[in-house]
Amino acid sequence: MGQWLHWIDLLGVAVFAVSGTLMAYRKHMDGFGVVVLASVTAIGGGTLRDMILDLPVFWVQEPDFLYAIMAAAALTIFWLRFTHKFPYQSLLVADAFGLAFFNVMGLQKALNYGATPFIAIVMGTMTGVFGGLIRDVICREIPLVLKGELYATTCIFGGVLYVLAQTMGLSISWAMLIGMLATLSLRLAAIRWHWQLPVFQGSH
Amino acid sequence: MGQWLHWIDLLGVAVFAVSGTLMAYRKHMDGFGVVVLASVTAIGGGTLRDMILDLPVFWVQEPDFLYAIMAAAALTIFWLRFTHKFPYQSLLVADAFGLAFFNVMGLQKALNYGATPFIAIVMGTMTGVFGGLIRDVICREIPLVLKGELYATTCIFGGVLYVLAQTMGLSISWAMLIGMLATLSLRLAAIRWHWQLPVFQGSH
Amino acid sequence: MGQWLHWIDLLGVAVFAVSGTLMAYRKHMDGFGVVVLASVTAIGGGTLRDMILDLPVFWVQEPDFLYAIMAAAALTIFWLRFTHKFPYQSLLVADAFGLAFFNVMGLQKALNYGATPFIAIVMGTMTGVFGGLIRDVICREIPLVLKGELYATTCIFGGVLYVLAQTMGLSISWAMLIGMLATLSLRLAAIRWHWQLPVFQGSH
Repeated sequence: MGQWLHWIDLLGVAVFAVSGTLMAYRKHMDGFGVVVLASVTAIGGGTLRDMILDLPVFWVQEPDFLYAIMAAAALTIFWLRFTHKFPYQSLLVADAFGLAFFNVMGLQKALNYGATPFIAIVMGTMTGVFGGLIRDVICREIPLVLKGELYATTCIFGGVLYVLAQTMGLSISWAMLIGMLATLSLRLAAIRWHWQLPVFQGSH
Repeated sequence: MGQWLHWIDLLGVAVFAVSGTLMAYRKHMDGFGVVVLASVTAIGGGTLRDMILDLPVFWVQEPDFLYAIMAAAALTIFWLRFTHKFPYQSLLVADAFGLAFFNVMGLQKALNYGATPFIAIVMGTMTGVFGGLIRDVICREIPLVLKGELYATTCIFGGVLYVLAQTMGLSISWAMLIGMLATLSLRLAAIRWHWQLPVFQGSH
Repeated sequence: MGQWLHWIDLLGVAVFAVSGTLMAYRKHMDGFGVVVLASVTAIGGGTLRDMILDLPVFWVQEPDFLYAIMAAAALTIFWLRFTHKFPYQSLLVADAFGLAFFNVMGLQKALNYGATPFIAIVMGTMTGVFGGLIRDVICREIPLVLKGELYATTCIFGGVLYVLAQTMGLSISWAMLIGMLATLSLRLAAIRWHWQLPVFQGSH
C-alpha cells in the first residue's frame, strides 16, 4: 500500500502545483515566480506541519516531490501557451482530491507522532490549506480559504470522521479511506452547490 | 505559581484571539477565516519562537491554548452579533496585558534554553508582536506594529529591565514582575498619550 | 579561512539589512519597522533554511549578525537624513555580492548536513532570495524576485557550478569560489544588460 500512497501523494502535490502556476500566470510572474508559487502552494502546508511537529521536512528526504512540482508547472505552462484557456472546473475537482489526500496524510503523520486527535485534526487541515493561503498572501490576495466556499471545513469534517473511525476500532486503512472520502465528497458538494460558511457582515 | 502563570498565559492568548477575530470581522471573513486569524494572532509569535529555538511548539503539547482561542473567538462573534459595536478601548488595555505577559514568557523561555540576554530580548519581543504582524500581512494591511504607537519598543524596554533585574541578583519571580510591569505601563502610557517612534518621511 | 568567511558573511548580512532599511524608508515605517524589515531581509532566508534542515538557527548562536544588522540600519538612516538620496547602483552591486555569498553558504551548509546536490541548490537559492521575498510580502509589494531581472536564477546557476566542481573532485574552497563567482558575474551581467526571464502574458 505504501507505494500506492506515495503515487497519490505525488499526484496531490502536482495538482496543487498546477494551482500555484495558474496564479503566477494571472499575476504575470516570470519562470522563477512560477516555480516558487507552485512549490509554496504544493508543499507549504506540509513543511509547516513538519516544522511544528519537529519532524524531518518531507521533501528534503524525497526530492520526488520537487520533481513532481516542476513537471506539473512545466506542463501547465505549455498547456497555457497553446490553448490560452484552462479547464478550471476539472482543476477544482482535481484540487478536491489533492485536498482530501493531504488532509489524511497530515492526520496520519500527526497521530503517528503521538499528537492528540484534536491536534491531529488541526495538522491535517493545516497540511491541506496552508499552502494555498501562503500563495494568496504572496500574491496580495485575501486568502480564498478564509472567505470562499467550504474548503477548510471539509478537512475538519474528514478529520473528525477519521478520528471517530479509529476510536471505533477500525484499521488505519479504513480510517484513511473514510476520512478521505468524507473530505472529498463534502468538498465536491460545496463546489457543485456553492455551499459557504456565513460571512461576517462587518461595518468599517 | 506555575498554575497561576498558566491561567494568565491563557488569558493573554484569549485577548490576542479577540483582536484577530475583530480583524476578520472587518475583512468580512467566514468562520474558518475567524479561526485562522484568531489563532495566528494568538500563537504565531510563540510558534515562531519555539521553532527558532528548536523547542517543542507549546500548543502542540497543551491544546488548552487552542480551546481558549476558540472560546474567545466564539464569544467575540456572539458579542458582535448582538451589539454591532466593540469596546476598542478596553480591548487595547487587555491587549497591553497580553503583550506584557507574552514578552515575559518569551524572555524566560529563551533564558531557560540558554540564550544570551540579547537574544532573549529579541525572543520576548518576537513572542509579543509577531502574531499581530502575520495577522496584518494575511489581511493585506501594512503591519500596525511597524508604524503605530509604541508597541514593540515596550517589549524591548521590559526585556532590558528583566535582564537587568536578573543580573542584579533578583529572583526570577521578581524579574518577571518587573519586566511585565515595565512593558505594561509603558504600553498603557503610549496608548494614553499617543507616544510614537519617529516615522520616516521618505519621498515616493 | 573561517575567520575571513565570517567577515564576508557579516558583510552580506549588512548589505541585505540596508536594502530592508531602504524599503522601510519608502513605506514610512518607524524605528522598529526598520529593525524588523532589515532583519527579515538579512536573516529570513537563512532562518528558514536552518528550520527546514532542523539545524540550530545561525543567528541565535552568534548575535554578531544582529549587531551587524543594527549597525547597517543605523548608518543607512543617518545617510538618508543627511543626503535624502541613495546610491542605488552601488547598492545593487553590493547586493549581488551578498547574494552570491549567501547562496554559497546555503549550498555548503546543506551539503554538510548530507542533503543531495539538488536539495542543496534549492537551499542555496532559498538562503539568497527568501529574505527579500518576505520583505516584499510584509510591505505589500509583489515580490521583486518573482518578476524582475535574473536574480534567483543566478543562484541556481552558481549552485549547479558549485556541485559540478565538487563532483569533478575540486576542493571545497575551489567549489565555493567558483559558485560565488558564477552567481556574482551572472547577476552583475543581468543588472548591466537588464536580462530577464520571460514573463507570462496572462489574460485575466
